[in-house]
Amino acid sequence: MMNTTSQMMQMHEKDMPMGGMNMSMMQDCIEACSACEQACTMCAATMSGEGMQSCMNMCMNMADMCNTMMRMMMRPAGMQMESMMAALQATMTMCVACADECTKHADMHEDCGICAEVCRQCAMACQKMMDSMSGAMPAS
Amino acid sequence: MMNTTSQMMQMHEKDMPMGGMNMSMMQDCIEACSACEQACTMCAATMSGEGMQSCMNMCMNMADMCNTMMRMMMRPAGMQMESMMAALQATMTMCVACADECTKHADMHEDCGICAEVCRQCAMACQKMMDSMSGAMPAS
Amino acid sequence: MMNTTSQMMQMHEKDMPMGGMNMSMMQDCIEACSACEQACTMCAATMSGEGMQSCMNMCMNMADMCNTMMRMMMRPAGMQMESMMAALQATMTMCVACADECTKHADMHEDCGICAEVCRQCAMACQKMMDSMSGAMPAS
Amino acid sequence: MMNTTSQMMQMHEKDMPMGGMNMSMMQDCIEACSACEQACTMCAATMSGEGMQSCMNMCMNMADMCNTMMRMMMRPAGMQMESMMAALQATMTMCVACADECTKHADMHEDCGICAEVCRQCAMACQKMMDSMSGAMPAS
Repeated sequence: MMNTTSQMMQMHEKDMPMGGMNMSMMQDCIEACSACEQACTMCAATMSGEGMQSCMNMCMNMADMCNTMMRMMMRPAGMQMESMMAALQATMTMCVACADECTKHADMHEDCGICAEVCRQCAMACQKMMDSMSGAMPAS
Repeated sequence: MMNTTSQMMQMHEKDMPMGGMNMSMMQDCIEACSACEQACTMCAATMSGEGMQSCMNMCMNMADMCNTMMRMMMRPAGMQMESMMAALQATMTMCVACADECTKHADMHEDCGICAEVCRQCAMACQKMMDSMSGAMPAS
Repeated sequence: MMNTTSQMMQMHEKDMPMGGMNMSMMQDCIEACSACEQACTMCAATMSGEGMQSCMNMCMNMADMCNTMMRMMMRPAGMQMESMMAALQATMTMCVACADECTKHADMHEDCGICAEVCRQCAMACQKMMDSMSGAMPAS
Repeated sequence: MMNTTSQMMQMHEKDMPMGGMNMSMMQDCIEACSACEQACTMCAATMSGEGMQSCMNMCMNMADMCNTMMRMMMRPAGMQMESMMAALQATMTMCVACADECTKHADMHEDCGICAEVCRQCAMACQKMMDSMSGAMPAS
């Protein structure tokens, strides 16, 4: 079964300013960003105790960045090569840093273990997008 | 198969400041808000032409409100009866207005037809949450 | 000196779907929401220690809601009476609850004292908007 | 007169994980991001007509990215060198692209002219931050 987001994305495949763009890869990246925003929002909200402030703040940053990245992929007419690449790079960099930080507390806070895994999956989805976009999108 | 968001929500069922809270209903509402944010983001981004400005702006408002509502349901320790009720009421009211506006253009813009349907589902999910919360949450 | 936001708002005063709308009051409310988003973001990010989780989560909710409310006031063509009223009511309700919670910790966490004051100012700005809108905007 | 955001930022200067960090430069960047989010939100909401879809979508992306960047600078404990640098790079890149696009329509849509200028100021503020951070923040 296809969800409404995938259905709407496919309706606008023709509007994408990218010749060889892999739409199913972009849909995977949208879903990875959405899952990462949700996991980081919950992880930040349920942490407590001493020494958790860096992890909480990194998760809050991650949730905001993932939401921004997700929305950017849902606006075909606004896609511009350098901007997309830089935003994907930022999302990926933050995902790796957040996953590393969450991993440190995975034994104390179960959410951190799940969150770290979701962050790593999001980093991979962003990396795949960047790889596929090299050469696929006109340089504006 | 359960997604990571549902898994994390269930881990925190015990932290919810609500006696008779129906967790699966809240998970449905989180998913409805997420779907509505995505549909409205795409709908606003792909509309064009004269006379569409109200619809676009209402969809942009809707996307922001749904994201806020979704995140509020993911922060168990921050749940406060009056705040949750007022935010659900705002989300529901905006969903109905946005669905009505999108319906007007459903024949010109296919996205609007899908978006209207997703908005109506989100309005219903918010209404169910409000109904279930009456009496279930201590008044802060 | 007028900032760019005020300058742009005044350019669109004519587009506002509200006869007797007080534009300077709306600009005050936009600024109050922006200040409240910023104070709550910092307050949530700098809190730590036991027993602060409710306050942190309420501040995170508040930051998201204030951003949504601020953006809604910046989209003239999307203004619809019931939606604006319900969103202002939600913002005001959340501001009062967040101010009350922050006040409890104002002696332990200096940010909470400032944040509580900014929340109360935002609640008042929303109340003024609601009062001025009663009768001013056509019922969609 | 100092606003509450500046006041709270100064209270947390000691928490910043950055030896030679220039706090007034960061406050300038926070204000530039806030102004850019607001200008882009209004610009996207008030554009209409044929051929404006790229500009609108780029402004919507810009508003979301600026909000994320602003919040990241308000969370001292979450600052991590690579993440901050990558997010500043993304914000700057998007600001330049958005300013270029808005400039194309500045004669048709007055908001675009103002928005382009605010985007350029934000790009400069991000560049200054990146310059000052090189060497100032420990590599996590």
